[in-house]
Amino acid sequence: MSIANNYIKENKDRFIDELFELIKIPSISADSKYKNDMIRTAEFVKDSLIKAGCSHVEICETPGYPVVYGEHLLNEKFPTVLVYGHYDVQPPDPLNLWESPPFEPIIKKTEIHPEGAIFARGACDDKGQFYMHVKAFEYLVKHDLLTCNVKFMIEGEEEVGSPNLGWFVKRNHDKLKNDVILISDTGMISNQQPSITTGLRGLSYVEVEVIGPNRDLHSGLYGGAVANPINVLTKMIASLHDENNHITIPGFYDKVLEVSLEERAEMAKAPFSLEDYKKALNIEDVYGEKGYSTNERNSIRPTLDVNGIWGGYTGEGAKTVIPSKAFTKISMRLVPDQDPEEITMLFKNHFEKLAPKGTRVIVKPHHGGFPYVTPIDNIAYQAANEAYSETFGVEAIPQRSGGSIPIVYLFEKELKSKSILMGFGLDSDAIHSPNEHFGVFNYLKGIETIPLFYQKYAELYKSNLC
Amino acid sequence: MSIANNYIKENKDRFIDELFELIKIPSISADSKYKNDMIRTAEFVKDSLIKAGCSHVEICETPGYPVVYGEHLLNEKFPTVLVYGHYDVQPPDPLNLWESPPFEPIIKKTEIHPEGAIFARGACDDKGQFYMHVKAFEYLVKHDLLTCNVKFMIEGEEEVGSPNLGWFVKRNHDKLKNDVILISDTGMISNQQPSITTGLRGLSYVEVEVIGPNRDLHSGLYGGAVANPINVLTKMIASLHDENNHITIPGFYDKVLEVSLEERAEMAKAPFSLEDYKKALNIEDVYGEKGYSTNERNSIRPTLDVNGIWGGYTGEGAKTVIPSKAFTKISMRLVPDQDPEEITMLFKNHFEKLAPKGTRVIVKPHHGGFPYVTPIDNIAYQAANEAYSETFGVEAIPQRSGGSIPIVYLFEKELKSKSILMGFGLDSDAIHSPNEHFGVFNYLKGIETIPLFYQKYAELYKSNLC
Repeated sequence: MSIANNYIKENKDRFIDELFELIKIPSISADSKYKNDMIRTAEFVKDSLIKAGCSHVEICETPGYPVVYGEHLLNEKFPTVLVYGHYDVQPPDPLNLWESPPFEPIIKKTEIHPEGAIFARGACDDKGQFYMHVKAFEYLVKHDLLTCNVKFMIEGEEEVGSPNLGWFVKRNHDKLKNDVILISDTGMISNQQPSITTGLRGLSYVEVEVIGPNRDLHSGLYGGAVANPINVLTKMIASLHDENNHITIPGFYDKVLEVSLEERAEMAKAPFSLEDYKKALNIEDVYGEKGYSTNERNSIRPTLDVNGIWGGYTGEGAKTVIPSKAFTKISMRLVPDQDPEEITMLFKNHFEKLAPKGTRVIVKPHHGGFPYVTPIDNIAYQAANEAYSETFGVEAIPQRSGGSIPIVYLFEKELKSKSILMGFGLDSDAIHSPNEHFGVFNYLKGIETIPLFYQKYAELYKSNLC
Repeated sequence: MSIANNYIKENKDRFIDELFELIKIPSISADSKYKNDMIRTAEFVKDSLIKAGCSHVEICETPGYPVVYGEHLLNEKFPTVLVYGHYDVQPPDPLNLWESPPFEPIIKKTEIHPEGAIFARGACDDKGQFYMHVKAFEYLVKHDLLTCNVKFMIEGEEEVGSPNLGWFVKRNHDKLKNDVILISDTGMISNQQPSITTGLRGLSYVEVEVIGPNRDLHSGLYGGAVANPINVLTKMIASLHDENNHITIPGFYDKVLEVSLEERAEMAKAPFSLEDYKKALNIEDVYGEKGYSTNERNSIRPTLDVNGIWGGYTGEGAKTVIPSKAFTKISMRLVPDQDPEEITMLFKNHFEKLAPKGTRVIVKPHHGGFPYVTPIDNIAYQAANEAYSETFGVEAIPQRSGGSIPIVYLFEKELKSKSILMGFGLDSDAIHSPNEHFGVFNYLKGIETIPLFYQKYAELYKSNLC
């Protein structure tokens, strides 16, 4: 596709400048004080889709933040590809760990990214990755090479669990009708070895409040005589894992599909260096469920992690207080066939029972999502693999991801179509962390590879019909 | 002492106004941004002592916040009483739980304080209680009734463990020479039943940092595969108590003096209603070490409480992160003959061993203090008891407190003199908590009772010499 390469060369700077403008808007869906920025971002996405060549674009209201929908329908004989992405980002804190301001994108060279990487919140997840699709689409329209009908659905609540996308999808079956859903919100093994994500973990996220005495107490006068909500909370959390790091919530594993030894052997073939892994995280050793490898622990096994905890005095110096309350945020990653709502209830019932007399516990479900496994025997996977093979020179490896895109499950349920996860990010991109970044190589490689997917997919679709 | 009562009646409003001015200065020793307020408070105390009639007052520099020293030496035949107090206060947070601003004192009536109580940080601990001594002294000087030499030593670092008072005392043995040390920084049983604190718990306070991966991680991509510093910290803290709520740190109890069954029976006679106690804290049940009563758990037994914990995402909504670090502040209350430095080392050695591979632990000692038991067979205790008996109409009950005034141990060691703890506060005063308050009745009763102590003490001292 030398035309594509030329076009990318000629427009590289503009592609980056446009992405910078998108990234500069702090679209943090978790924090309501960024409401206006969220709306500004939706408007920006709408304009981008119009400029790229969509024949129809609209901002669709939902009970939460709006969904930006765009379409370019050429021929009913063409297959229809629905591109999904999200314009919201994770909160940037802890801010003090950022080497440059999270919403002031800057390009810096790194060991893995000698051509430079864009450092900013959302650079990879998911602004950089969904904007590749907008630019790939722009290229195909400009050169009249489009062989598929294209629809875009860019939402604003993915980082808070897409609470309203189900509402939107249920009400727009016809509008969203498609043959395949294309998503770039995952990663690949390395810039030399592309991979296609074939599995996603589900999610159950809860917030817990442990309430003790009706006011903060002097730890001298009351210490030892009343239940301290923080001590109690730590005991309750600690009891959620046994000595083998199995989760102790009754029924938690009941619906977990054990992965066959054959498939585990297949997985084990993926290139992985435990030494490099530990070195990259600067840890002496890994830690996790007994009987499983690191790559299994973060993909085919469910987990329970504390994502936040707070209570008592956290300022400078010392304060001898027994706090009235302690809080925590806990998320559980789920695997097929665990049901997030069922797991949330199992957690709630179990956790509330753990509270000793003298304390009360409130468990508030945040959001959840179903796990998902994508098949590798369909033409969409084949098209993606061929596209990667052409631009990277090697075949893509199918890989299970530990992350969650709950919406993929919903798409299959509501729209009866499969999702294909063409991720161009790397594990080292530090998404959800300070100093998130996205390689310029990866950004441009995505813009080069995506048009090939459309081409291959249309060809396979056509030959499949015959 | 009808003269005293008249004087108090006539000057009641002024006494309260002056205390308000003192309280309004936010002298928070734990937070360095209040440095200037600390100095202003020391100046205020100096002026108060001069106005009250001290013949010599000075602000004595230390490596930390200054000590305000004042003296009024009448006759070398008189016994010398050293009054100790502190002008610093605890941080006021959580601010949102205060019904009125912590540094804008206001008088409100409560069930326990029908005559009204002063609501503000420091109202009781210790501005209100040491200022009683300034006003009692003023009364005695004005009416030429002083039968003792009086010295004042008001420090500014009690709430952070008096890190420099030892330095000061060691260098000023002659200046601080005294026959007895008088302190009002504790409580009494009720406004109908005075008590004298005969025991104080010691303190070991540490801050802990658990370090995992070198950056915050996406809990989906890494969840289950690396040690999560918060999960690890909760496991470590939880393991510090066994199922009977005994502390599991090896050697922790080795030097604990078991209190005799006789003394425990004596203690059990103090008026106490478990139902009222639970009702006052709005808890269904108490919680603590097996085999001991509530009053024993918070006085004659050592304890370990988490005073603060933080890590990960604590903002609004959900963030799926594995934090790089987790933090906690832990304090241990000690009883005779536990040594705070030894206990801190035992904690440090044990806690660091608890960290699993893949995490590092840093234990930073904050401050500590020795436990102390005051004798009840000396003339100071007798004088205090007689003073209470005259103003309250009932004898005072000796009582062990769960709190800590580490400095009392230091005084005995350095100055070879006993401390007598005449507290006028109540448990319900919420010291160290939001809405701290001090009864107007208690404030004025202190000003009425303290002069009687001087009188009785001088008499007993004289007859003792003969």
